Amino acid sequence: MAANTFGTLFRLTTFGESHGQAIGGIVDGCPAGIPFDQEFIQTELDRRKPGQSHITTPRTEDDQVEILSGVFDGKTTGTPIAFVIKNKDQISKDYDSIKDIYRPGHADYTYDAKYGHRDHRGSGRASARETASRVVGGAIAKMILHRMGIDIIAYVSRVHKIETTKTYKDLNLSKIEESIIRCPDEEIAIEMINLIEFTRQEGDSLGGTITCVCKEVPAGLGEPVFDKLNATLGHAMLSINAVKGFEIGDGFASTYKKGSEHNDSIREGTASNHDGGIQGGISNGKDIVFNVAFKPVSTISKSQTTTNKDGEQVDFSTEGRHDPCVLPRAVPIVEAMAALVLIDALLLQNTQNILKTQ
Amino acid sequence: MAANTFGTLFRLTTFGESHGQAIGGIVDGCPAGIPFDQEFIQTELDRRKPGQSHITTPRTEDDQVEILSGVFDGKTTGTPIAFVIKNKDQISKDYDSIKDIYRPGHADYTYDAKYGHRDHRGSGRASARETASRVVGGAIAKMILHRMGIDIIAYVSRVHKIETTKTYKDLNLSKIEESIIRCPDEEIAIEMINLIEFTRQEGDSLGGTITCVCKEVPAGLGEPVFDKLNATLGHAMLSINAVKGFEIGDGFASTYKKGSEHNDSIREGTASNHDGGIQGGISNGKDIVFNVAFKPVSTISKSQTTTNKDGEQVDFSTEGRHDPCVLPRAVPIVEAMAALVLIDALLLQNTQNILKTQ
Amino acid sequence: MAANTFGTLFRLTTFGESHGQAIGGIVDGCPAGIPFDQEFIQTELDRRKPGQSHITTPRTEDDQVEILSGVFDGKTTGTPIAFVIKNKDQISKDYDSIKDIYRPGHADYTYDAKYGHRDHRGSGRASARETASRVVGGAIAKMILHRMGIDIIAYVSRVHKIETTKTYKDLNLSKIEESIIRCPDEEIAIEMINLIEFTRQEGDSLGGTITCVCKEVPAGLGEPVFDKLNATLGHAMLSINAVKGFEIGDGFASTYKKGSEHNDSIREGTASNHDGGIQGGISNGKDIVFNVAFKPVSTISKSQTTTNKDGEQVDFSTEGRHDPCVLPRAVPIVEAMAALVLIDALLLQNTQNILKTQ
Amino acid sequence: MAANTFGTLFRLTTFGESHGQAIGGIVDGCPAGIPFDQEFIQTELDRRKPGQSHITTPRTEDDQVEILSGVFDGKTTGTPIAFVIKNKDQISKDYDSIKDIYRPGHADYTYDAKYGHRDHRGSGRASARETASRVVGGAIAKMILHRMGIDIIAYVSRVHKIETTKTYKDLNLSKIEESIIRCPDEEIAIEMINLIEFTRQEGDSLGGTITCVCKEVPAGLGEPVFDKLNATLGHAMLSINAVKGFEIGDGFASTYKKGSEHNDSIREGTASNHDGGIQGGISNGKDIVFNVAFKPVSTISKSQTTTNKDGEQVDFSTEGRHDPCVLPRAVPIVEAMAALVLIDALLLQNTQNILKTQ
Repeated sequence: MAANTFGTLFRLTTFGESHGQAIGGIVDGCPAGIPFDQEFIQTELDRRKPGQSHITTPRTEDDQVEILSGVFDGKTTGTPIAFVIKNKDQISKDYDSIKDIYRPGHADYTYDAKYGHRDHRGSGRASARETASRVVGGAIAKMILHRMGIDIIAYVSRVHKIETTKTYKDLNLSKIEESIIRCPDEEIAIEMINLIEFTRQEGDSLGGTITCVCKEVPAGLGEPVFDKLNATLGHAMLSINAVKGFEIGDGFASTYKKGSEHNDSIREGTASNHDGGIQGGISNGKDIVFNVAFKPVSTISKSQTTTNKDGEQVDFSTEGRHDPCVLPRAVPIVEAMAALVLIDALLLQNTQNILKTQ
Repeated sequence: MAANTFGTLFRLTTFGESHGQAIGGIVDGCPAGIPFDQEFIQTELDRRKPGQSHITTPRTEDDQVEILSGVFDGKTTGTPIAFVIKNKDQISKDYDSIKDIYRPGHADYTYDAKYGHRDHRGSGRASARETASRVVGGAIAKMILHRMGIDIIAYVSRVHKIETTKTYKDLNLSKIEESIIRCPDEEIAIEMINLIEFTRQEGDSLGGTITCVCKEVPAGLGEPVFDKLNATLGHAMLSINAVKGFEIGDGFASTYKKGSEHNDSIREGTASNHDGGIQGGISNGKDIVFNVAFKPVSTISKSQTTTNKDGEQVDFSTEGRHDPCVLPRAVPIVEAMAALVLIDALLLQNTQNILKTQ
Repeated sequence: MAANTFGTLFRLTTFGESHGQAIGGIVDGCPAGIPFDQEFIQTELDRRKPGQSHITTPRTEDDQVEILSGVFDGKTTGTPIAFVIKNKDQISKDYDSIKDIYRPGHADYTYDAKYGHRDHRGSGRASARETASRVVGGAIAKMILHRMGIDIIAYVSRVHKIETTKTYKDLNLSKIEESIIRCPDEEIAIEMINLIEFTRQEGDSLGGTITCVCKEVPAGLGEPVFDKLNATLGHAMLSINAVKGFEIGDGFASTYKKGSEHNDSIREGTASNHDGGIQGGISNGKDIVFNVAFKPVSTISKSQTTTNKDGEQVDFSTEGRHDPCVLPRAVPIVEAMAALVLIDALLLQNTQNILKTQ
Repeated sequence: MAANTFGTLFRLTTFGESHGQAIGGIVDGCPAGIPFDQEFIQTELDRRKPGQSHITTPRTEDDQVEILSGVFDGKTTGTPIAFVIKNKDQISKDYDSIKDIYRPGHADYTYDAKYGHRDHRGSGRASARETASRVVGGAIAKMILHRMGIDIIAYVSRVHKIETTKTYKDLNLSKIEESIIRCPDEEIAIEMINLIEFTRQEGDSLGGTITCVCKEVPAGLGEPVFDKLNATLGHAMLSINAVKGFEIGDGFASTYKKGSEHNDSIREGTASNHDGGIQGGISNGKDIVFNVAFKPVSTISKSQTTTNKDGEQVDFSTEGRHDPCVLPRAVPIVEAMAALVLIDALLLQNTQNILKTQ
């Protein structure tokens, strides 16, 4: 892993600014001979795209993915798979007014501090638009995972204070995509949507949590001591824009239990899973379960006070083409990053087979 | 980062099993000419060592660090710094009874699933004994950070349900080491200690949270989009034994706020720091603050039921030389991992100076 | 370094097949604020492009580079610089006849052995067309190196048995680009060109050597013990298509000398440079000098016998749009790879300044 | 690969200075369950050790390897294998006289230029003593390679101008270890030994070439485009002390052939192997053959003139406990580095099996 590259063997490198020519990336290390399903990638991208419902930004980036290399005769060739998504609905002029302003909660100041200057248009590289490339990379990973029977399913479990009290086992996960908020608890979903609508009208924004479940992951994945599977999952999730927390299994709640209450018995079908499917940093064959905390979106239309480049205090407000709550669109991003972690862990674990497979 | 190596430029590789010959590691990439303070390393190790107080395990590993290379004339030479800590107080026979048992909450089963066999003595490589090597690596990182004025301070902020309600700004952080539980809130510390004592007598164990503050970190550290500073800090913390959660700044609590409540203004001395010193994955010059959740220790003396290698259900209990609560000893480990993240981020950011320094 | 990525801090990842949609790459880790000269990149690409003279292939790939990201206000932003070169003059049908044939000297069989199938059109990923992406990456590196006063100059020193007997110090290196064979020894250059012309008419091909000189490289570059500067230079050169040998300084000739004849005195202006500017794997401030051996091009129009996928013996010949000798077009590739090695070594060495620059 | 670490999946990290406490290393990424043969490691180390014959240095480092971790019940556990070789026969005082002198041909000046100071005793980290750790790492790699039927055999093919004219196919490679110069051509071996003896008495030193053959390497190894198998082999060899050149197959000699003479036919039992078993950077199943050029040893007892730290010209000479020719002791080092490259390439290629082995 290195700045704009994620993964050791299955490596996604992304590029692109919000208002540049294009965003995109390269997947290197994808094994050869995998049947390549470009439509599936597009479907995954569509789950992330803006303008998909009335509770997301009304911007309508079309986000058509183009594959430039690495696929031949309908199968991956083992060589780098490059892809590009052209930027279209860019109105860069919109951003002239904030060119010299360091917006609260944003990366404006930190990019300047790090690099000396920045592409300020639409937040440039710091824009969550970059995550579209992750969805493409993750979709390619999922093509392999699906063939192995591994399923990754994420959903919105809480928006602000509105939370489903059911665990994933009690929810019908096949209903996630039926709801524009991507919460499978129908009643709660309606409450969430109403709150988001109300908050948008206030000119404010909301955060919440996404829960992710990975099913049929074989035991043995993860590379202790530093690349424990929970550590690379945490790394992956915390690299997503606006994420402020990660917990595996019972996570922070586990700290309120005693050892005798928390300890998972091993290998029994009916056993508890407080550890969330990972022990000692290695998957144990149970469902992998984790939560990701997203702070409220920094861009709000309410007027705010901040500082400009010259250190002067300024008032400003942003026009309203932004998401009041990123969570529904973040669901496929969380899944994509989980897919990248799992495929890499699978490839790494495969090295243990060296004497068997040669 | 790769399995047993942490860091891109300042790289710590650790080795060793709990009951093998020795544990230790190699620090590669430490700049040359750094005055080397071996006593400081030993002091840091002593903060982690077992038997340091009546609330930790009564095992008395001496944990003397030996430096084998990379230091000359009292300064680092820029070549690898290898170190060894011999294993001494090993009574491997103690573990014969659990050789074929998969203990609940432990990594016994997962190591077998991954590697086909394992060194079961004292949990082998999965033992938290490994973290002594991290403390050494972190101490070497701190030698450089201290010269830059950067300070890393961690403390126990909660044990089970006993929590200090003060923020780090209201606590006297210089008092942390005065308390055997390493909580600077004196009254709360006493409650924590009492609870730990009580729980030990019950034959049970406790978890909790550690809060860490990094002061005087310059703005500009962190490598978006995948190696955001919060992502590498999260990776580092989640790689520590028993850690189940990580949050930066307000973390999970931030999800209960609206954007207008959460957004930090930029650069003002009196400003809020909900983001915990990192925005867009890059440090902003404010204090970096994060919390780490430790589950209750898996090893308890209460009798438990589990499965052995043959899939049979077995009852077992462990004799009592274990920590009822790892948090006080985990404080220097959290600091060490934070130090490794920060020194690496500083070295990486230094590449931005290429045209200035040549 | 990993498959399609070169470099530790300044990382070039390339993609693309000869007859796919496009080739290109991503440069990650380029420091911010570097004035970006796209025309210079194009000039470098033009030095590599086919059809540039009567001794190269008559194919006329236009090789226009498009920059998709990482540059703003005429300067690098520190974020990934993605670039694309569209494939144009592709007549893929030409290759149908060799689809199932393993051409001698080519990578046809080995790609099939590795990946199970391959994009056979124009050699696919194994085509030297990929090196155009390296020239772009190298040109970006050169933009920084030039500002530091570092110059990288390569030339053709031998074609088959026709060799300049002058060392680089006795040649006028400013004349390299005046000759279509890129040999600054004018008389020898004419002989080389004549030999290439004659060989083309024979339907055969030629190899030779390229000599490269790097001037004003500061002392201190290179990362022993495994990433010695000569080792990374060697790695870089041996990764170029058709390269079969690498030697630094006197190289193989040094083995015919005694220590007393070969040992370079240190630091004296008039001193010898048998070691080629690198000692103990670290640059010593003298000119870095190395030679690269290119085998004769595998594609020839003479009829050859080989094997097809079914193991049957077949005769075949290739039509004549190929280079009879790659050396003149390989000169900018050698320079590009040297530039990538040097910029990475400079950035790595800069970490030694950590206490000075903060 | 990074400074003191070699390999992507099977990673050797080495440490230690010639006259420090110890040298050693860590092998990380070795698959679990490999029967571990410590005696074999010692045998390999003995092939490299000083004082093994009258043509090597009379220093008698005992070089006993100690394994500290990663092995249990006679098999590797998949965790890091740490090893230490204590330094014994150190007479550091011997080096006081050269403390401030930059010896010709050595790394004295360059280490100072890079790091600002250095451990000058016995060349410190720049000493070829470091390669003992490579032999240990390579021996562990060989344990796996042998089980796969892969054999790596190196021998001295030339000393100064004395060269065997036979190719490896015409030599009895089982006789290599019978000769103290490790050349299987008996008559030539005697001439080589005589020349070395004579040169030692002159107070001078010699270089030469080592040829290495890797047999039964499966087709498909190597990771284009940057980690071609020849590129990683070249990197490995050029990282060995005193190596100035590398060539695969016919190497530099191939440049004197035409395409029609050089092109290897594919897959036929009787076919030529000018390419040395690698095409397009990927092994083709034929023997891998390469040559490595070693310059004459820099340490000679003849008086030499050089510069000291203050830039003053000084005369100096070294006492005679050094090798007049490193080649016989370098044979196991070349093999070790080849083994590290091949095991890493095998593990990487194994990722192609992901869908087959799960």
